Amino acid sequence: MIISRKSRYVYNPLLEEDKLAAELEKQGKHVIKLNAGDPAAYFKTPSYIINAFVEALKEGRTAYANAAGVKELREAIAERYWRMYRSSISPESIVVTQGVSEAIDFINAIMLNPGDAAILFRPYYPLYPLYLLENGGKPIFENYYESLSWNIDTEKLEKTIKKNARKKPKYMLITNPNNPTGTVLDRKVLEEIVELANNYGIMLISDEIYDEIVFSNAKFTSISEIAKGMPYAILNGASKAYDATGFRLGYVLLPEHDAKSEQLLAKLVDYAQARLSASTPAQYAFAKALVNSKEHEKQVRSMVKEIEERVGLATKLINKSKHMHVVEPQAAFYLFPKVNLKQLGFKNDKEFTESLLKEEQVQLSRGSGFGAEGYVRIVGLAQKDILSLAINKIIEFCERHAKEA
Amino acid sequence: MIISRKSRYVYNPLLEEDKLAAELEKQGKHVIKLNAGDPAAYFKTPSYIINAFVEALKEGRTAYANAAGVKELREAIAERYWRMYRSSISPESIVVTQGVSEAIDFINAIMLNPGDAAILFRPYYPLYPLYLLENGGKPIFENYYESLSWNIDTEKLEKTIKKNARKKPKYMLITNPNNPTGTVLDRKVLEEIVELANNYGIMLISDEIYDEIVFSNAKFTSISEIAKGMPYAILNGASKAYDATGFRLGYVLLPEHDAKSEQLLAKLVDYAQARLSASTPAQYAFAKALVNSKEHEKQVRSMVKEIEERVGLATKLINKSKHMHVVEPQAAFYLFPKVNLKQLGFKNDKEFTESLLKEEQVQLSRGSGFGAEGYVRIVGLAQKDILSLAINKIIEFCERHAKEA
Repeated sequence: MIISRKSRYVYNPLLEEDKLAAELEKQGKHVIKLNAGDPAAYFKTPSYIINAFVEALKEGRTAYANAAGVKELREAIAERYWRMYRSSISPESIVVTQGVSEAIDFINAIMLNPGDAAILFRPYYPLYPLYLLENGGKPIFENYYESLSWNIDTEKLEKTIKKNARKKPKYMLITNPNNPTGTVLDRKVLEEIVELANNYGIMLISDEIYDEIVFSNAKFTSISEIAKGMPYAILNGASKAYDATGFRLGYVLLPEHDAKSEQLLAKLVDYAQARLSASTPAQYAFAKALVNSKEHEKQVRSMVKEIEERVGLATKLINKSKHMHVVEPQAAFYLFPKVNLKQLGFKNDKEFTESLLKEEQVQLSRGSGFGAEGYVRIVGLAQKDILSLAINKIIEFCERHAKEA
Repeated sequence: MIISRKSRYVYNPLLEEDKLAAELEKQGKHVIKLNAGDPAAYFKTPSYIINAFVEALKEGRTAYANAAGVKELREAIAERYWRMYRSSISPESIVVTQGVSEAIDFINAIMLNPGDAAILFRPYYPLYPLYLLENGGKPIFENYYESLSWNIDTEKLEKTIKKNARKKPKYMLITNPNNPTGTVLDRKVLEEIVELANNYGIMLISDEIYDEIVFSNAKFTSISEIAKGMPYAILNGASKAYDATGFRLGYVLLPEHDAKSEQLLAKLVDYAQARLSASTPAQYAFAKALVNSKEHEKQVRSMVKEIEERVGLATKLINKSKHMHVVEPQAAFYLFPKVNLKQLGFKNDKEFTESLLKEEQVQLSRGSGFGAEGYVRIVGLAQKDILSLAINKIIEFCERHAKEA
């Protein structure tokens, strides 16, 4: 066997039906893909960002950059946190990564020895346990509770922490706003989580990549507004709010300086230096985009308004079906309905999504890929007519199978 | 301690003096940096590539791409290998990575369980042992021999393989043309290496990133021309011949399909899928650059001619000093002279490069970072007047210290 043991964990369930979809397309069938959380596939990356990228290229920004990120970008990120959250963050506390994915990989590689524990919440973004396990870690799972509109139950969290105290979890990773549920965590819940992290000495990591894709009646709170005097990390990037997934730019913030975060920061720089550089022209483009907050706010407001309408429409349609139910999302662009699989005669969500793809040519992601069997993730980014068509196909599919079951 | 054991191996010696250099610059001193193997910092990335990148951006190529690389790029890479080496490689046997660095990381993560051995050659590119060790591997070292103009001694290699047969080395990694020595491996040597790899069942990996930066009286042979019917991997990318280091595009070729390479290929795709995508617009730009072979050949020929002159000049200057000696490079843009440290009163090459930086503001890389104590690496990319000035400073520095010692 040529393949290492740890590499068996490296598998992205979000892409597992791409092969089948490609086969169907080869047969001349049109597949409606509601599985990719990729705004840039649906909304043109704003022209002011494209222009900034073109400018960077024409200025000759094509050599290796500072491994931890170019000065201009790190300063622009720090400015963003001051502008948005009144968080004073030093540019030296920022490490630019090749997407949030690389940031997650680095953090797990740096923080985990084989057997070390860390706390994740289900449903999780699949790449969290992937990199955790690939780096020899052991996940401790708590939950986002559907009954709490997918918020965290901090009493249950504390019980889980206490129960696992001997394992000394290295970090606790939350996603806020959430993928796949579209939930924004309550400020009060966040405050309690911060307190728990502080009391039990667990590094809090908050993936806030969707922090600007928040719907009109929700209020997002960044960890940077609450956690003071304790080590924490924020993950963010260009992909979602700046609608530039293909640029591959993420970053890690480590605003609070204590022994723990200093070590982590220094090692993040070392990991960044090992792979030399993130995309140089993309960094200069993103720096300019960040500084151009006027243009950005106009663009992001219009994109979010449109996304909110699409996700709202999808929510209404889904909840008309008696075979599915979804908690109304407050942010991001995902819907995570529960499906009455038993009523429909499916043994699990994988069978459901595969059959749906084969019979209706609609591609979703199975909930079990997020650690939540019995759900599916629907990406609500497609234009309304396509989205309605696809969801109606899902509903019809459910009705047909309910009759047959 | 928050830092994992394996992460202590993650440290790039090529960048270790950057901090000191930055301090000197803050003091108003001009540092001549001969330490970065970055052609794009010295030669403008060709405008036909920049234009292709701009076009890709304007066409809206900004969403996530196929994780293993966009079709157009993988086809263009396959075409390149047919055009240059008459090697018939399927686009499906190619995985696009974020630089060769990522390719090295993936290969080590996939192939090595803790304790597994692999064969490296000294002087090595520092990121090979870094990723090998970070993934729990144990290096077995053979050498490029200075007495053989930095070629490999295949008899000694066979002895090393036999001596370590029980360790079952997972791969053997050569760099051809070489960084840091600038050597092109002899075809006959390569043929013998291929035979050894085949006889002993060791996967041969050839890092050929400098395959087009070859000087006028040297002849480069790609492993793809020799290795047939056995699994092997080639690493290459856009950085050097296409003068676009900051684009972060590399690739792995696995042309021969047997059980081993099939598993490796499938896992490379999995690792690529975990981090979603390499830069999308850069991939389309590189695809167009690869296809535009007429424009490319004109550009690369003129760049290589100029590099050859610079490296030739540097070679002559260095060999005039009685305190250093360098084997004349045949390729790439590195010079790897031996320094008579004892005569100069330095206890090691680290002390030498640090003193040189402080006293003369010339930045080199220490040989011990490449596993070869007593040498230094000089990058011969700077324009001739700067390069002469810097090397003369090094020579004067040596003479001064020889007198003092």
